[in-house]
Amino acid sequence: MNTINIFNNLVYSPLGDGGKKVLYVIKIGGNIIDDETKLSSFLQSFSNLEGYKVLVHGGGKLATKLAEQLGVEQQLIDGRRITDAETLKIVTMVYAGYINKNIVAQLQSHNCNSIGLSGADGNLIQAHKRLASSPLGDRGSIDYGFVGDVDAVNVSLVKSLLEQNISLVIAPVTQDQKGQLLNTNADTIAQEIAKAMSTEYEVHLIYSFEKSGVLMNAEDDSSVIGQINPGYYKELKDHNIIFAGMIPKLDNAFMAIQHGVKRVVIGKAEQLDQLISGTAGTSIIYE
Amino acid sequence: MNTINIFNNLVYSPLGDGGKKVLYVIKIGGNIIDDETKLSSFLQSFSNLEGYKVLVHGGGKLATKLAEQLGVEQQLIDGRRITDAETLKIVTMVYAGYINKNIVAQLQSHNCNSIGLSGADGNLIQAHKRLASSPLGDRGSIDYGFVGDVDAVNVSLVKSLLEQNISLVIAPVTQDQKGQLLNTNADTIAQEIAKAMSTEYEVHLIYSFEKSGVLMNAEDDSSVIGQINPGYYKELKDHNIIFAGMIPKLDNAFMAIQHGVKRVVIGKAEQLDQLISGTAGTSIIYE
Repeated sequence: MNTINIFNNLVYSPLGDGGKKVLYVIKIGGNIIDDETKLSSFLQSFSNLEGYKVLVHGGGKLATKLAEQLGVEQQLIDGRRITDAETLKIVTMVYAGYINKNIVAQLQSHNCNSIGLSGADGNLIQAHKRLASSPLGDRGSIDYGFVGDVDAVNVSLVKSLLEQNISLVIAPVTQDQKGQLLNTNADTIAQEIAKAMSTEYEVHLIYSFEKSGVLMNAEDDSSVIGQINPGYYKELKDHNIIFAGMIPKLDNAFMAIQHGVKRVVIGKAEQLDQLISGTAGTSIIYE
Repeated sequence: MNTINIFNNLVYSPLGDGGKKVLYVIKIGGNIIDDETKLSSFLQSFSNLEGYKVLVHGGGKLATKLAEQLGVEQQLIDGRRITDAETLKIVTMVYAGYINKNIVAQLQSHNCNSIGLSGADGNLIQAHKRLASSPLGDRGSIDYGFVGDVDAVNVSLVKSLLEQNISLVIAPVTQDQKGQLLNTNADTIAQEIAKAMSTEYEVHLIYSFEKSGVLMNAEDDSSVIGQINPGYYKELKDHNIIFAGMIPKLDNAFMAIQHGVKRVVIGKAEQLDQLISGTAGTSIIYE
């Protein structure tokens, strides 16, 4: 029996403009997770990326498929899953179990030492169950079930792992510190981690998915909008150019850029290097 | 948004006889995991336990039940699951996902900061796929499928987490560093971790399950054998008093006590405190 020493490697993280170390928080969208080849290629690029990094993953269609197989009916409102007890169980199994551990095992095979965590682990993300009476504007009030809204991120734990040269792979399941797990939007988790860690690092938040960026024409993947500021965002929403699931994603992006995150880019998972270097995707601009 | 500092609490771990800090490695058996009340009470006792601690859990009947629901046929040889690709998926979902995260969430609710890990996370446990041609004595050779035999435990990672006052909750899934997850016997994982960590700590290994200890009469829970040494073990096997699933468990226990682990006790999960204090269960004796 040999023991493994993980502290042998020197940690290299580039310094940002302000002298802070750079941290990449990268969200990988569901559709990539469903595609074995694309996921594998993405994980290779992620592994090659130098510096501190956190990967937040969604769940893809696997949870929906398992729910169907088990006869658990799924409800979606505004693209968000209504999470009853059975759905929470499926989400926890698929997100925090199957997907999370397979991503970690693949990263280990690329010599990218990583650790897969849910929000419960090490008290990483504390949340509360979304109240059924939450005001939702003209959409009335909805009970989302076991869905969490994030209260706090354990900055010390994230920092301690990163500085041991361990990347984090985070499943979108949080907890309320009273023993209850909560299904939580992965875009929001990426935003909250990016914001919280920006006290320590120069954080670059990358939302990567199957499209090349935010598109002028949802049917034309070459119609990428290079930059969006809050005024332009309002205009794009008013003209229904940005709609449906892109709205909460962009809300998260603006929340991040307006609360300490250095850079937010939205784009194609297969172009991770270009998203990092700023030569592809849509950049979110502060004002 | 608040941040949580996990480093505020002073870490207390009693010193053992040899001046080393004490580490409890506790395996919790499947049948307890299936019983919500017993599990909850066990986790409360585990939380109250002072000192460094690692919890290794099995899977209970949940994986078998899910396999049935999904129409995946299960095969067992010598009480060990044959793990095909579909079974591995179920095992990863149930063990590393559902059970692991629910245990961690419950421990958090008892203010026991814990982190749930599989063997892939942080490269915690490196294993290799068991070879189909492994000699099995007169039982011939069997292909167990995606089943792992442990090669190495990441002592530095375990130590680093324990010394941040974080308990570890370990699911019996390992990896081969080539991207392949492997189903691994939880008793063996407890043994391997106990052995590996005994270079750093005075390790007490507790195998807890639904019975009061190793029994003279499997039907009589009051017939606990107080101590077993290797000679007596052979005798008990020869007389068929110890048989079936207790044999690999005791093989693990002897392997641990003969390779640096200070104390090995087998007993009832509901009596955790007494197992720790040495007033219940079966003690495994070196020679």
